[in-house]
Amino acid sequence: MATQTLLSDADLSSEARAVFDDIRKTRGSDFINNFWRALAHDPALLKATWERLKQVMGPGEIDPLTKEMIYIAVSVANACSYCTHSHTAAARAKGMTDAQYSELVAIIGMAHQTNGLVTTLQVPTDAEFQV
Amino acid sequence: MATQTLLSDADLSSEARAVFDDIRKTRGSDFINNFWRALAHDPALLKATWERLKQVMGPGEIDPLTKEMIYIAVSVANACSYCTHSHTAAARAKGMTDAQYSELVAIIGMAHQTNGLVTTLQVPTDAEFQV
Amino acid sequence: MATQTLLSDADLSSEARAVFDDIRKTRGSDFINNFWRALAHDPALLKATWERLKQVMGPGEIDPLTKEMIYIAVSVANACSYCTHSHTAAARAKGMTDAQYSELVAIIGMAHQTNGLVTTLQVPTDAEFQV
Amino acid sequence: MATQTLLSDADLSSEARAVFDDIRKTRGSDFINNFWRALAHDPALLKATWERLKQVMGPGEIDPLTKEMIYIAVSVANACSYCTHSHTAAARAKGMTDAQYSELVAIIGMAHQTNGLVTTLQVPTDAEFQV
Amino acid sequence: MATQTLLSDADLSSEARAVFDDIRKTRGSDFINNFWRALAHDPALLKATWERLKQVMGPGEIDPLTKEMIYIAVSVANACSYCTHSHTAAARAKGMTDAQYSELVAIIGMAHQTNGLVTTLQVPTDAEFQV
Amino acid sequence: MATQTLLSDADLSSEARAVFDDIRKTRGSDFINNFWRALAHDPALLKATWERLKQVMGPGEIDPLTKEMIYIAVSVANACSYCTHSHTAAARAKGMTDAQYSELVAIIGMAHQTNGLVTTLQVPTDAEFQV
Repeated sequence: MATQTLLSDADLSSEARAVFDDIRKTRGSDFINNFWRALAHDPALLKATWERLKQVMGPGEIDPLTKEMIYIAVSVANACSYCTHSHTAAARAKGMTDAQYSELVAIIGMAHQTNGLVTTLQVPTDAEFQV
Repeated sequence: MATQTLLSDADLSSEARAVFDDIRKTRGSDFINNFWRALAHDPALLKATWERLKQVMGPGEIDPLTKEMIYIAVSVANACSYCTHSHTAAARAKGMTDAQYSELVAIIGMAHQTNGLVTTLQVPTDAEFQV
Repeated sequence: MATQTLLSDADLSSEARAVFDDIRKTRGSDFINNFWRALAHDPALLKATWERLKQVMGPGEIDPLTKEMIYIAVSVANACSYCTHSHTAAARAKGMTDAQYSELVAIIGMAHQTNGLVTTLQVPTDAEFQV
Repeated sequence: MATQTLLSDADLSSEARAVFDDIRKTRGSDFINNFWRALAHDPALLKATWERLKQVMGPGEIDPLTKEMIYIAVSVANACSYCTHSHTAAARAKGMTDAQYSELVAIIGMAHQTNGLVTTLQVPTDAEFQV
Repeated sequence: MATQTLLSDADLSSEARAVFDDIRKTRGSDFINNFWRALAHDPALLKATWERLKQVMGPGEIDPLTKEMIYIAVSVANACSYCTHSHTAAARAKGMTDAQYSELVAIIGMAHQTNGLVTTLQVPTDAEFQV
Repeated sequence: MATQTLLSDADLSSEARAVFDDIRKTRGSDFINNFWRALAHDPALLKATWERLKQVMGPGEIDPLTKEMIYIAVSVANACSYCTHSHTAAARAKGMTDAQYSELVAIIGMAHQTNGLVTTLQVPTDAEFQV
């Protein structure tokens, strides 16, 4: 199911094509996943999203694999199945080991649990946590 | 506000006191934050939660700071204010730099955005992401 | 998959049939979507939901298309795939153009992003926003 | 409470000051709300967020008041209290009447209800809603 | 903070007053909590919400205390602090013991954890669970 | 789709096999649902989750069927389709009648609605609800 069609390469506007070219070049792969093909209906949104994602997920103070694990954590909590699939695949492609994945799964589960406990109990924030 | 009172050290059952002792010893600090004081009404839940948290967040394949950043990511997406405060404080205590925090903030924001875009467009998962 | 079966017209109680009749008359279409067929097991819930929906989404101070776009926004944030599909179809049926849809997608994405940023930073509400 | 301090005008880097200048000019108001003051620690994130928000919420195919109502809907479903406050204030500033607000409240409530019903019943998406 | 003012008894329209009268009569208490005072700006929404709540939470196949515990569970997962407070108070007023509350807290925490684990692992639904 | 493969009985480590044995013995059924087969990649997580679930959902102050209904409520609000399916099946297996299920569906829908209304209106918590 989908609420927006996916554009094939033949359907792209020139602005969208330029973004696809940059995705392929940046990733060193010809594969363009469905997210970009759905966004391609709106070249301005496609370009803004890709440019920002490239910057945020690119080299920086946090290593690329950690960035993907953080992305998975958000995607799970937002119940985004597609995003969980795509970023888990990305994390594996960036070297996530089975042992790291097991720990990631356990951390996400634990965080959900204590989030639920805290919200049930409506625990007031300690003054010590204030900046 | 709160839906459960916070127990002071003087109010603890012996089982709860033993857990508080282990929290203090493990963390090398006398400070016990409100989450544990609210949980202490149910020593079995207190003990199970602390034992599991200690194991999941302890030494392993993912470094301690990364674990805290993943925890923050889940807590934000679950809109748990207390948890966001406590794990941001924990991440800073474990050495998170201002530059790393800036990247973490940006990644969480970006993930929320693409989660929202994907769910709006109901993008079908690529076969390539299937294990 | 489903946790409740869908009732065909032949399976309906007389109370449920009366609601289906009103849905068909109100919408000017013979089509009854699956949501109502699952609710039809409980004619009281079916009737209460339909009556209220008809009133809330009917003529008023906010135009019908805007109402559908608001409905999509909620449904996406609640990760309700069915609801996102049904209300996107409804918005298109009520005249949503491709250009409006592109803007809607971008707004929902942007709102998710700033929601995520605000919650990560735990920004205190400005006194100016208080009624 | 907050997990990040708020920067006063005197604390701003020159890059952050330039963004604040543009916010003031665009809005025709000297008031800078706390969201931007928390983001200002990271001028690149501040600038990217403001530039994108200005574009997405600016003139287009959907009128400015409708955009704010969609923003409120997302913010409520994400349980972002700050965002709900700020965008409700913005909607009122853009002319939202009491009668429109009442309808908005009712629509958001209704959407949450049917989202909950659909997810409980796990209703399969009708083929008719597929693009 | 609030995005809508609370109406005192002196501010009520006659339609809203009639609803408040019924709330007081039904509950056998003069106390009207803030939720109804915020809704009272829109007597139609106030009346529809109260009438439906009275029916759904009234006598039926599920006992009143269980209904409140289910309500708490939803409210926690939706991160609604007000609702968690109000329905926890209601559950206690309906006889929830400390031991029952401890179990409720543990169940909600456990459910959040396994929800998080399942979503991280994207576990496919067993055919056995299909109706 | 899935982000983790499902282990057949032949693939299990001895630690995982011992957990499966206990699940089968406790439930009096040979059937092992996919959740456990996905978790089985990490025997420590499998064991910790099963042991805790068995304790939390076992005999206590809240009856087993009520526990399942609370679990469904959380799972729906977290948009966990798998969990909603599995715990609805469990509730039916524990004797949930059609009439009880109808009430459960209505309560969950109602709770979502008032959660949405409260969060839109940002209703301040009454002092009376404070413990």
